[in-house]
Amino acid sequence: MAFYIQKYGGTSVGSTERIKNVARRVAKFHAKGHQLVIVVSAMSGRTNRLISLAKEVQDNPDPRELDVMLSTGEQISIALLSMALIELNVKARSYTGSQVRILTDSTHSKARILEVDENKIRADLDAGYVVVVAGFQGVDAAGNITTLGRGGSDTTGVALAAALKADECQIYTDVDGIYTTDPRIVPEARRLETITFEEMLEMASLGSKILQLRSVEFAGKYKVKLRVLSSFEEDGNGTLITYEENEKMEQAVISGIAFNRDEAKITVLGVPDHPGIAYQILGPIADANIDVDMIIQNVGHDGLTDFSFTVHRREYSNAMQILKDKIQGHIGARNIVGGDKITKVSIVGVGMRSHAGIASKMFRVLAEEGINIQMIATSEIKVSVVVDEKHMELAVRVLHKAFDLD
Amino acid sequence: MAFYIQKYGGTSVGSTERIKNVARRVAKFHAKGHQLVIVVSAMSGRTNRLISLAKEVQDNPDPRELDVMLSTGEQISIALLSMALIELNVKARSYTGSQVRILTDSTHSKARILEVDENKIRADLDAGYVVVVAGFQGVDAAGNITTLGRGGSDTTGVALAAALKADECQIYTDVDGIYTTDPRIVPEARRLETITFEEMLEMASLGSKILQLRSVEFAGKYKVKLRVLSSFEEDGNGTLITYEENEKMEQAVISGIAFNRDEAKITVLGVPDHPGIAYQILGPIADANIDVDMIIQNVGHDGLTDFSFTVHRREYSNAMQILKDKIQGHIGARNIVGGDKITKVSIVGVGMRSHAGIASKMFRVLAEEGINIQMIATSEIKVSVVVDEKHMELAVRVLHKAFDLD
Repeated sequence: MAFYIQKYGGTSVGSTERIKNVARRVAKFHAKGHQLVIVVSAMSGRTNRLISLAKEVQDNPDPRELDVMLSTGEQISIALLSMALIELNVKARSYTGSQVRILTDSTHSKARILEVDENKIRADLDAGYVVVVAGFQGVDAAGNITTLGRGGSDTTGVALAAALKADECQIYTDVDGIYTTDPRIVPEARRLETITFEEMLEMASLGSKILQLRSVEFAGKYKVKLRVLSSFEEDGNGTLITYEENEKMEQAVISGIAFNRDEAKITVLGVPDHPGIAYQILGPIADANIDVDMIIQNVGHDGLTDFSFTVHRREYSNAMQILKDKIQGHIGARNIVGGDKITKVSIVGVGMRSHAGIASKMFRVLAEEGINIQMIATSEIKVSVVVDEKHMELAVRVLHKAFDLD
Repeated sequence: MAFYIQKYGGTSVGSTERIKNVARRVAKFHAKGHQLVIVVSAMSGRTNRLISLAKEVQDNPDPRELDVMLSTGEQISIALLSMALIELNVKARSYTGSQVRILTDSTHSKARILEVDENKIRADLDAGYVVVVAGFQGVDAAGNITTLGRGGSDTTGVALAAALKADECQIYTDVDGIYTTDPRIVPEARRLETITFEEMLEMASLGSKILQLRSVEFAGKYKVKLRVLSSFEEDGNGTLITYEENEKMEQAVISGIAFNRDEAKITVLGVPDHPGIAYQILGPIADANIDVDMIIQNVGHDGLTDFSFTVHRREYSNAMQILKDKIQGHIGARNIVGGDKITKVSIVGVGMRSHAGIASKMFRVLAEEGINIQMIATSEIKVSVVVDEKHMELAVRVLHKAFDLD
């Protein structure tokens, strides 16, 4: 008998038939005597439809009101899943984020969870209920509805697992685990039994898209055991995300190849090479709530340097505008250039810490295929390169083979 | 400068275009310096779609969970209307029933409002906001989401008008006022400038469908001035519902002809004519939450009597089942008969109090057309008859003419 938080994503609850399938799966776990809190996302497509509806009214929907709208997506899912469970004679009860209450800060559309009230859930679990909680949403101290941003349902799951001290937080999705890379690009990709939090963090932020970055950070911080599983397969252990290296059984130096097609690069050319310049450039970008991924600044010469960074592709024109309007003249930069036809490809693995020459092997493999590297950034357990987007698939395939992941 | 509660129904907010129209109308009122609280329903069709979705999961959706789902309909409307107002540079803020907080009892799908918290709304009005409140919904003392039942948005409007002491509660709908009868049946039907609460109460319960019965009762109890207006016309005074007879300017004895096609009749034949029999029959019906409309029991003979009542057509088979299973044997009734091919037609008017012979004139007019009367019930200001549904239109037309309403 264990206590699980199970999170089912939008695809897993994409239709009433699928919701009934989830209910049957949950009912089986419940019949075994496990205590269960189920976190669900909005039915797939619903959030996008709500956003479209909002945009018919306002090009830039008011953030507070948009959250009021978007939170209805999960609200429908929790009600339907609870009904499906009750139909199977399983006692079930749903809660919205504000009913639980999942207290967040007031940053609409990107709120951070501050606190989870466990009283109602505990009481229901003790009374034999399966508790169904809306993912992705919360409420601020003033009672306003907030949302956690895309993928926030994973974060809800982890936050509940941490607050309630669950044995495991199981993320059910449409894949059966974490792979060495995307199997659609490399058919030889393998499922990993385990992956470390650090590797997962790099994989997630680099676009493996299975788990939301923040939920992995959160899980690591509170030592929540996270497991990624398929909601469409009956059995299967998925991939367990561990936080101790010695739990790791894989011996490969590199655990996986990640890639991200959603980025755009921006370079500020010829900026005075003095302290504070990075802040002067990125401050206004951060103020506009634009997330920056890679940041590269090389050694300068003649008192000038070039400063590059990448942003999400949809923020590209916005970021360019801000740089041209507010920053270029202010800091006396020579020019601002950029492009959104790029892809970031990364190799990730805790093993590379103790293996020299991993990065140079990566660069050699790419060079042998004639793939030009535009930018490079490294951390202790990953090496990322930016290449032309037309080279992405080739780069992923040759790296997957070269690092013995096939 | 006045303080209005304005309620816009599902048709008025049926598309984003219509929501923008409502916003323009509200913005005009706001520009004149009026204080405004806007109550909105779900976009037309949305509630029915949600019910269908729920029924794909459970034939009889769990009432608590169904309310969680249904309440999302208005939640989307309040967000969209607030966005549309903000787009017009009108400060606006939305509230769900539970945010306001509209405290109700715990009868899911038919909850009654107990209390309205006016603090947030007052503070927002004082700060120059238009406050947009979700109709039809509330929250019980334990924090569960409740709904007030179909048409409950009117009740929300009246409850807010009563709690906040608004000057008028304006119900915007797709008709421009209350008519002497349905203009689709009788083209000569006229709009009434005013109608008394009592008459309106009879008209509403008899199926004029413009205002929900409970909202009219509620308005009468708290002396809230109610006005029915069209949301599609620029000007027009609609119909004011007054609570003093001397405010009434119409001189006709009869104010209108109402009808209801949604009823079914049930007769319990040959029941022992002793005290308590009505309760023994209707108790189990009420326990099953089935609303009963007309109740008729004639003078008995030989110690036996027949007991008849009408219910909503969709409750007909359910009610018949309960009577046969639980009541017939228990009270020793000879038989239970019924039919759902009936219509109730009523003449309504405070004027009939002081005019003799109104009922007999009604019966004569119907007899002249060969329309058989199956049941009769009367109150001080109305006479209702049940006729075969095929005679409904003819009955309404001839009565409208006979009572000089054309």
